[in-house]
Amino acid sequence: VTNKHQKTLGQLALAVDGEVRGDSDCVVVRVATLNEAGAAEIAFLAHPKYRKLLAETRAAAVIVRDEDAADCPNNALVVRDPYLAYAKVAALLHPQPAAVPGVHPSAVIAPSAKIDSSAQIEALCVVGAGCEIGAGVYLGPGSVLGDQCRLGADCRLVANVTICSETTLGARCLIHPGVVLGSDGFGQAYDNGQWQKIPQVGRVTIGNDVEIGANTTVDRGALGDTCIEDGVKLDNLIQVAHNVVIGANTAIAACVGIAGSTKIGRNCAIAGGAGIVGHIEIADRVTITAMTMVTKSITEAGIYSSGTPLQENRAWHRNAVRMKQLDELAKRVKELEKKLAGLGGVGVGKEKHTQE
Amino acid sequence: VTNKHQKTLGQLALAVDGEVRGDSDCVVVRVATLNEAGAAEIAFLAHPKYRKLLAETRAAAVIVRDEDAADCPNNALVVRDPYLAYAKVAALLHPQPAAVPGVHPSAVIAPSAKIDSSAQIEALCVVGAGCEIGAGVYLGPGSVLGDQCRLGADCRLVANVTICSETTLGARCLIHPGVVLGSDGFGQAYDNGQWQKIPQVGRVTIGNDVEIGANTTVDRGALGDTCIEDGVKLDNLIQVAHNVVIGANTAIAACVGIAGSTKIGRNCAIAGGAGIVGHIEIADRVTITAMTMVTKSITEAGIYSSGTPLQENRAWHRNAVRMKQLDELAKRVKELEKKLAGLGGVGVGKEKHTQE
Amino acid sequence: VTNKHQKTLGQLALAVDGEVRGDSDCVVVRVATLNEAGAAEIAFLAHPKYRKLLAETRAAAVIVRDEDAADCPNNALVVRDPYLAYAKVAALLHPQPAAVPGVHPSAVIAPSAKIDSSAQIEALCVVGAGCEIGAGVYLGPGSVLGDQCRLGADCRLVANVTICSETTLGARCLIHPGVVLGSDGFGQAYDNGQWQKIPQVGRVTIGNDVEIGANTTVDRGALGDTCIEDGVKLDNLIQVAHNVVIGANTAIAACVGIAGSTKIGRNCAIAGGAGIVGHIEIADRVTITAMTMVTKSITEAGIYSSGTPLQENRAWHRNAVRMKQLDELAKRVKELEKKLAGLGGVGVGKEKHTQE
Repeated sequence: VTNKHQKTLGQLALAVDGEVRGDSDCVVVRVATLNEAGAAEIAFLAHPKYRKLLAETRAAAVIVRDEDAADCPNNALVVRDPYLAYAKVAALLHPQPAAVPGVHPSAVIAPSAKIDSSAQIEALCVVGAGCEIGAGVYLGPGSVLGDQCRLGADCRLVANVTICSETTLGARCLIHPGVVLGSDGFGQAYDNGQWQKIPQVGRVTIGNDVEIGANTTVDRGALGDTCIEDGVKLDNLIQVAHNVVIGANTAIAACVGIAGSTKIGRNCAIAGGAGIVGHIEIADRVTITAMTMVTKSITEAGIYSSGTPLQENRAWHRNAVRMKQLDELAKRVKELEKKLAGLGGVGVGKEKHTQE
Repeated sequence: VTNKHQKTLGQLALAVDGEVRGDSDCVVVRVATLNEAGAAEIAFLAHPKYRKLLAETRAAAVIVRDEDAADCPNNALVVRDPYLAYAKVAALLHPQPAAVPGVHPSAVIAPSAKIDSSAQIEALCVVGAGCEIGAGVYLGPGSVLGDQCRLGADCRLVANVTICSETTLGARCLIHPGVVLGSDGFGQAYDNGQWQKIPQVGRVTIGNDVEIGANTTVDRGALGDTCIEDGVKLDNLIQVAHNVVIGANTAIAACVGIAGSTKIGRNCAIAGGAGIVGHIEIADRVTITAMTMVTKSITEAGIYSSGTPLQENRAWHRNAVRMKQLDELAKRVKELEKKLAGLGGVGVGKEKHTQE
Repeated sequence: VTNKHQKTLGQLALAVDGEVRGDSDCVVVRVATLNEAGAAEIAFLAHPKYRKLLAETRAAAVIVRDEDAADCPNNALVVRDPYLAYAKVAALLHPQPAAVPGVHPSAVIAPSAKIDSSAQIEALCVVGAGCEIGAGVYLGPGSVLGDQCRLGADCRLVANVTICSETTLGARCLIHPGVVLGSDGFGQAYDNGQWQKIPQVGRVTIGNDVEIGANTTVDRGALGDTCIEDGVKLDNLIQVAHNVVIGANTAIAACVGIAGSTKIGRNCAIAGGAGIVGHIEIADRVTITAMTMVTKSITEAGIYSSGTPLQENRAWHRNAVRMKQLDELAKRVKELEKKLAGLGGVGVGKEKHTQE
């Protein structure tokens, strides 16, 4: 097996600012795990729990920290951050495929759309009126662009992506299958037992280097725009409601829901299944753990959580019943404290705890 | 900028049963926020927290309550419910685009399908055998209809919608991209360590004026139908399982899951991320807050919740450990109460609390 | 109404190893509920709560346990497990439609794709280079296959399915609309405030007899594969992250999220809305209840849960505040126990409770 992007270990070291211990001319074709790598492959050791695999690996080379280099049975590529260096090495060996310029004859392109000559429009795409498609863009099969969309250079829509009218993407965005951008926000005014739809006249604007995972949805603004800033990474099946702002370089894992008009800071990390209510603000550098329910603004960087721990079902059930009585239990404890304090000489003393 | 749907303030007042304070002949082209509106735009003031923006708005007109009219720097449109009036004004100025009759040559239409001559079938749609497409229907690009589907007048499928066989929609339904209607319900019978699929022979029936958000899924019935009644509004990424019934004018926010055979009443409001188990009933006018887990029927109108509040991660962790010991803690409190009652003269008295 | 798959009651009895009480020659055309079944239909009674409907059913026949047979007003089909027998009967009367061999002229097929002559490729499908499509496969309208995918015999992709490059499916898989298989996993390395994408060079491999519900996403492996073993059943809107392994015959309900590299055992049942963190293992025959958060490995078969019970909103709110004070409350109880033990002769005795 060869790979037209293959490199020597020396070339890789140069690219990731690392140092080769061993044969710089060794050719590396692919990345692989310590377990599975063979003589043409490079592996990495980032987490100590895999250190035991190092001695037995058959990889051509391993990306390691200095302290692990001596244990490499073969060539070592020594770096400060093996995981990051691995990411860069993998990107060199396995780059996104480049667009092959041209428009597939089965695609349906509005006459007023402007498509850069270096862009690739695959089979059965639809491109609406007034769209502007930048250099090197790849529109995968079955993708649909509404009117007046703009895609910056080197955007890649993998397949079956839907982008509604007036949505703009910066450069180098990677949009996975089933994504919907610019769908109507959920705006309904109550009218005597029925709902009056509120037209969603805002748009979606997406910065550079944004990645959006499969079947994620980003609604257009009601008034004004939904904004996803540069470098944001969204996983699969995420809901981003109208007028949400997601700050630059924030990463959000799968199955998160973000309600309308909430503003999330920069460099946040939101774990899977979290839910964030509408009209709040999350500060920069906030981490939210899995399945947490965020019901109010978070004003300081830090790690935040909610939820109850896993238990065997019967034990959980006994405790869950008690959760419904918790306020009353707390009152009973307070009463006990009072009574006990009333028993001369045994005072419970000042209560130092906070009670919100 | 002009808009072929633009209106004078007087025309809008007539439409929303409001009163103009100022120039009835003022032309309104678009809606906008108080902040961003200019001389051709109308804004609204519904929530008191935005009142401070009123004095400085450059909007041509503002939709306000009577008590705020005097503070409008320009024209006022005085109504009882500014948010609802805004919704109606926005719908007048920014109506859904009308269907442009015709079938795109790239669409694939079964010969037995009946398509009203006023309907618009966009590029690369597929319409199955025996479908009936009503007047003014818009089938957006890439939409697929299985056999024997019926779409009432003026339904709008934005793009890439999938409607499986035998599904019926009433009039004026708005279906956003990526929606799947009529997919198989999740029916599996246990057969000695394996699963035997149960054919899903029911259908999906949807009433009039239903809106369904991007990538939401509605499964067909196992036997009998999954029913979504008139005026229901569903947000994005919602799961509606087989044989669910959703009562008229109920609104459901994103990421909600509703398990099989559950019946939800009319005029309910279910917030994002809630989960509702199967085979239960929810009464009319029930509100369920975000991420609530509903595990039993709700027989009375009201607001219902579950979940634990957000905390800084270490504090949460300390409390989470205690949740696993809650039943035991309650028993220790009871024991303390007994012991203390045993100390002559200091009786804790009758316990008045409920213990389920 | 007739049905070319209709059977006599005798034929059905033979197929499900049951016994007819009544007319074996009675023709059964369809399945239906006890309530709705008529003279050409067969119903079933599995759950005791529907027993009251038995006396009044107008079904041609009812599938029942021996003890209910006498109460059947018409013919009975007596079996040990009526629900399973019903599933089999329904599958006989309502089989998946067979593929009608041929490739629709609007489909776009790469010249190097190998498509079995008995397969059916519907309108507007795209099949990439080097794909291998087995005998009897059905590719529904709008489905897209990337390069080098392999589909085993009799797979059925209902419509608008997206399968990314190098994904393999075994025989008889049923994939519902909007499913995405083989999308990139969410791999990002932190690089001084920005994210460096980690190319996802693994694949998705799916066994035989797997069913995957609408809009579910299964990501390809980062290194190595994401594996879904034989007989797995996935409902709608599920997220399966990179390098997850789901053991044979496990069933997972809608809206579940499974994070990267987690290994789920065989014959597990995971209820709707559950979330499972990454890099853990779940043993065989584990049941997880709805909306449970699984944050650590589960090493023994059993039923596991987390979450808080539904309450009226104000009561919930009072209790939720207390959850944030739970650790402190536990400490106060411990203090009380100490104090009370200090009161001569009233000792609380040994604490027998576990404190993790």
